[in-house]
Amino acid sequence: MPEIRKDPITQAWIIIATERAKRPDDFKTDAKPEEPKNCPFCEGNENLTPPEIFSYRKEGSGKDNKGWWIRGFPNATPVLRIEGDIGSRGFGLFDYMNGIGAHEIIVETPNHNDTFATMTTNQIEKIFWGYRDRIIDLKKDTRFRYVLVFKNQGPLSGTSNLTHPFSQIIALPVTPKKIKEELDGARLHYQLKERCIFCDIINQELMTKSRVIVENDKVIAIMPYAPRFPFETWILPKQHCDDFTMVGKQEIMALADVTKRFFAKLYKVLGNPSFNVILHDAPNKIPQQGYWQTIKYDFHWHFEVIPRITKVAGFEWGTGFYINPMPPEVAAEALRNA
Amino acid sequence: MPEIRKDPITQAWIIIATERAKRPDDFKTDAKPEEPKNCPFCEGNENLTPPEIFSYRKEGSGKDNKGWWIRGFPNATPVLRIEGDIGSRGFGLFDYMNGIGAHEIIVETPNHNDTFATMTTNQIEKIFWGYRDRIIDLKKDTRFRYVLVFKNQGPLSGTSNLTHPFSQIIALPVTPKKIKEELDGARLHYQLKERCIFCDIINQELMTKSRVIVENDKVIAIMPYAPRFPFETWILPKQHCDDFTMVGKQEIMALADVTKRFFAKLYKVLGNPSFNVILHDAPNKIPQQGYWQTIKYDFHWHFEVIPRITKVAGFEWGTGFYINPMPPEVAAEALRNA
Repeated sequence: MPEIRKDPITQAWIIIATERAKRPDDFKTDAKPEEPKNCPFCEGNENLTPPEIFSYRKEGSGKDNKGWWIRGFPNATPVLRIEGDIGSRGFGLFDYMNGIGAHEIIVETPNHNDTFATMTTNQIEKIFWGYRDRIIDLKKDTRFRYVLVFKNQGPLSGTSNLTHPFSQIIALPVTPKKIKEELDGARLHYQLKERCIFCDIINQELMTKSRVIVENDKVIAIMPYAPRFPFETWILPKQHCDDFTMVGKQEIMALADVTKRFFAKLYKVLGNPSFNVILHDAPNKIPQQGYWQTIKYDFHWHFEVIPRITKVAGFEWGTGFYINPMPPEVAAEALRNA
Repeated sequence: MPEIRKDPITQAWIIIATERAKRPDDFKTDAKPEEPKNCPFCEGNENLTPPEIFSYRKEGSGKDNKGWWIRGFPNATPVLRIEGDIGSRGFGLFDYMNGIGAHEIIVETPNHNDTFATMTTNQIEKIFWGYRDRIIDLKKDTRFRYVLVFKNQGPLSGTSNLTHPFSQIIALPVTPKKIKEELDGARLHYQLKERCIFCDIINQELMTKSRVIVENDKVIAIMPYAPRFPFETWILPKQHCDDFTMVGKQEIMALADVTKRFFAKLYKVLGNPSFNVILHDAPNKIPQQGYWQTIKYDFHWHFEVIPRITKVAGFEWGTGFYINPMPPEVAAEALRNA
């Protein structure tokens, strides 16, 4: 019997289509890594990118030269512009504002074919520190309501043709709708229970264990109860915190450890999958905005990992009601055993 | 300067990425129609499908035989099952129910390579009458909250490998999230203005004309002000009505006329695009559900057409905040002139 499940945070429904169920192996892809050709993100090609905003580098190496571990610069074709004011206005029913924002790239490694599964935890730590540095800097700009950190990896992830691992950071003058829904859902739970819903979920998952993939004492990777996609995974800190920039050294180490172990398992089971990673973080705490008041208590930062291994059809677009042929309990078990 | 626009119904933000703007021609695809091979939906292969639920046929032709114009039957691999009760229950934080529902196919034409652009308006009318018949029948089942009508056409639409034009109907025990958001947004507007927001949008679009594609006296095709995708289009009745099953003969004729003219233009500009069509209709008016009371006044049925010509990346998935490189005014002008 297929099962219809409700996401406890956003109240979205999904179908676990047991009649169309597949084995975890059925989602395996054999996409081959490609040889870099004039890759602008490879070490030695720093002159092919805009000048760097920041980098973590070996001692003695110079800006926009070799010798870096991670490297950030503005996107050469940004979707938003950094200069100008928001200019919020309306025309009849319609509201609009200027496309003000920042759009940056963080190259995650000098090595073209590295992945989270093959990098050292030390390298992954550096990437997370890089995210934190840029979020802190961009949140100083009070025009921005939200700083979005995400990455697209692989040809099905919606990325451009660049295969070298990189993350993107977009600072926005509005809070995106799906983040707002999550904030609203988490707030509603807090108003009812005076507890964080993400903390409650972690506690329930730790009791049943069926959707837990990997954990250490500070960080846990679980599959959500009502995942939209096969192998969709959340990586969360065990200790409550709304704001990624508050993360400490030990937590970053633990996050890098869980991230590496999770992706090593994911690559083992799925081959070389395309995927997206999105940081769900608290919005910019600007006093005139309502969310800053209790968000410290009701929201919980986390990463969402979405392998892009199934097609999304008209049904999903039209409804927000997803059909998932892979029960998360089966997918989590396959990864635990990998 | 890129522009950030807000959808007046769902309050979702999108970016019109003028810096990445493309000409309408840049989205043209040259996918070739393929020859049918053992297509279960072609005339003469009726024995390859489940027995028909209904068909419109030439006089004297028999059930599950040649001689039909359109033909409906249960999906052979349904995502939901028709037998059983809902069995709504919970486990801690998590809610679930049995996957009860109906999942049907309507084959739109006996001819494998027909499209909305090449069919007669008379044939398109028959398809819409078929939708109406099935919605009326399925809404009699009070287990169902929503009857969803949609179609996926082309390899990028998320369809299975079947290229023969067909629509799908899924009856659901819950109202899908995106439909609920639209209902909520429309209701909010009604509470403020005592007017239907879709009627207000049609009136504003008829004044500016910049996003109107085709119209006749009863039906209009417009591009939404804040479209998520290039060439996204809504087809709406000009006269207010929440419920597709209330449509009259003249309105169906007008709907078929606008549909054919719109798709003829779409194919002319985009070649042979993949697309989704989704009917946004009122939910099942079950007395204990709150929506039935004023929905007659605040919702307005319509079709949404989403050409699938751009990749959707992590940014969109993670945020619900879409980047659209094609201003709807430019796309609408290209279609008007086609």
